[in-house]
Amino acid sequence: MKAKIDDVAKLAGVSKTTVSRVMNKRGYLSDKTIKKVHDAMDELNYHPNVVARQLFKQETKLVGLIFPTVNNPFFGQLVSEMEKRLFNLGFKVLIGDSMNDPKKEKLYLQELMTHQVDGLIVGAHNQGIEEYKNTNLPIVAIDRIMNKDIPVVSSDNYLGGQLATQLLIDNGAKIIIHTNDPQNIKSPAQKRRSAYEDTMIKNGLKPIVYTLDFDSNTDTKINSIKKIFKEHPDVDGLFISNDMDAAQVIDVARGLGYKIPEDLKVVGYDGADVTKVLLPNLTTVVQPIDKMAEVAVNTLVERMKNDSYDSNRVLPVKIWRGKTV
Amino acid sequence: MKAKIDDVAKLAGVSKTTVSRVMNKRGYLSDKTIKKVHDAMDELNYHPNVVARQLFKQETKLVGLIFPTVNNPFFGQLVSEMEKRLFNLGFKVLIGDSMNDPKKEKLYLQELMTHQVDGLIVGAHNQGIEEYKNTNLPIVAIDRIMNKDIPVVSSDNYLGGQLATQLLIDNGAKIIIHTNDPQNIKSPAQKRRSAYEDTMIKNGLKPIVYTLDFDSNTDTKINSIKKIFKEHPDVDGLFISNDMDAAQVIDVARGLGYKIPEDLKVVGYDGADVTKVLLPNLTTVVQPIDKMAEVAVNTLVERMKNDSYDSNRVLPVKIWRGKTV
Repeated sequence: MKAKIDDVAKLAGVSKTTVSRVMNKRGYLSDKTIKKVHDAMDELNYHPNVVARQLFKQETKLVGLIFPTVNNPFFGQLVSEMEKRLFNLGFKVLIGDSMNDPKKEKLYLQELMTHQVDGLIVGAHNQGIEEYKNTNLPIVAIDRIMNKDIPVVSSDNYLGGQLATQLLIDNGAKIIIHTNDPQNIKSPAQKRRSAYEDTMIKNGLKPIVYTLDFDSNTDTKINSIKKIFKEHPDVDGLFISNDMDAAQVIDVARGLGYKIPEDLKVVGYDGADVTKVLLPNLTTVVQPIDKMAEVAVNTLVERMKNDSYDSNRVLPVKIWRGKTV
Repeated sequence: MKAKIDDVAKLAGVSKTTVSRVMNKRGYLSDKTIKKVHDAMDELNYHPNVVARQLFKQETKLVGLIFPTVNNPFFGQLVSEMEKRLFNLGFKVLIGDSMNDPKKEKLYLQELMTHQVDGLIVGAHNQGIEEYKNTNLPIVAIDRIMNKDIPVVSSDNYLGGQLATQLLIDNGAKIIIHTNDPQNIKSPAQKRRSAYEDTMIKNGLKPIVYTLDFDSNTDTKINSIKKIFKEHPDVDGLFISNDMDAAQVIDVARGLGYKIPEDLKVVGYDGADVTKVLLPNLTTVVQPIDKMAEVAVNTLVERMKNDSYDSNRVLPVKIWRGKTV
């Protein structure tokens, strides 16, 4: 006789509702409960088919997007593109600007689970948030390594770092400095740094890396930038890990009398639409933001339908030739 | 004897649920139904107090934000600031990027009502959407005139237009052209145009206005901009109604050989944070975006609590002196 949900509940020693919640990835569930239910399902060889699950699953048609802020050319475009695609698939979008505050991100997660979103796409910065581990909610990460069960969509950060560094070297720069996020943030973006270091060493040049914190205020950031020029006045190339920082670096450099690109060549990173309009002269590594949004949404929808999904997806990048190199 | 909700329902000839929905501004209601219920309430002198209403009102703690797109420095900052404030007040935010598509905006409205948001803040472009009239949902508009029952939060667009035009005149410009949205969009921003025209005429100068459509693609926009310079090669001042357009105008002008500010002075509009970082040299009229977000959120919360609210709020603007004038 085929096992029923009651049998699973009985064997696992939990209520039918809990079994249903485990199967449908709803609400907060402890690892222990999830394991008990999965063990019982395995033991009884209980395999609810997808159609049946959809039937008794309460779809909310809500998807949560947790990103640092939409007040940024990269994240604004990413969220906008995802929203457009989700809308076309019949989903409404709940946003949470986590501002890289782990407390706020934790609260968002808890509350989005309460609002019973059907899935989450996250690109927030914070690690070690238990809620990501204790839910079976379908989640997709963009450019952030959450944990091994969550697929990551990113662009080819290593290639981007290589292209940027090589472009500076090919144009005669020798003292090339790279700026990046603090290294404690585990993101694929750290590969830009590795690629920079590898490319420098391969060309017999010395890698010099400075940290510019995404979250620091303008004054703090400008002071950090000034420090770079004070400690390395002979710098002739800069590979900056995002375009907003690149704009500030260029502004500080011009204020100090550097001519760009004659004295100093600069390559940014991201190449968002807004940046291309406001700062068209910036030479930068362009991430395929619209494509990243598309792949993230498709991966999430796949995860909602079944437990399998494409493994991590890495998308190609290219150089936009402005006038700063 | 004090009238009860049943009495209202009976007199209005509708169900108790409908009366409750009218009082709590939930879901789609025809003008006719709303009027019948309000008439019955008036006739019976039925005044449910706010506390009682809160008690039987199903709060969702969801607020919908309908704006053209978060992929824009002005709207990105506005939505980000509103989300932050709403989060602190215990609300989650549903976003709808309407892309100035009336069909999409209509769908958003219908679906947000289905998801039973507690209120809406809208800054979308479209007029004549019936749903805005047929709901009693608390709504606040930013910079858009929806209908007379919806409070509007805006910055002082007339003052902004005056300051920008006068700055160009004071710096010696004589052939000053203004660009703005199509005039069929009824927004307080059209006051920038009136202020420009008034200021030009007061100074004995001839107003010349061109239309640049917010929604047109880059190529179309660049062609429109080129047309301005072709028809007025002797232009020496430009007052552009938003910074993204101003950036594109500057790029086209430089490509045509104009030196800025020597040959041509340019003033933009908005002064969003992202723009100040990416294009710090742009002289522009700064809207108090964070304050607009604060006032809009506070007005919405007031409207949720009771039917009265501050009338339209107009916030001050100021000039940011970059290097384009």
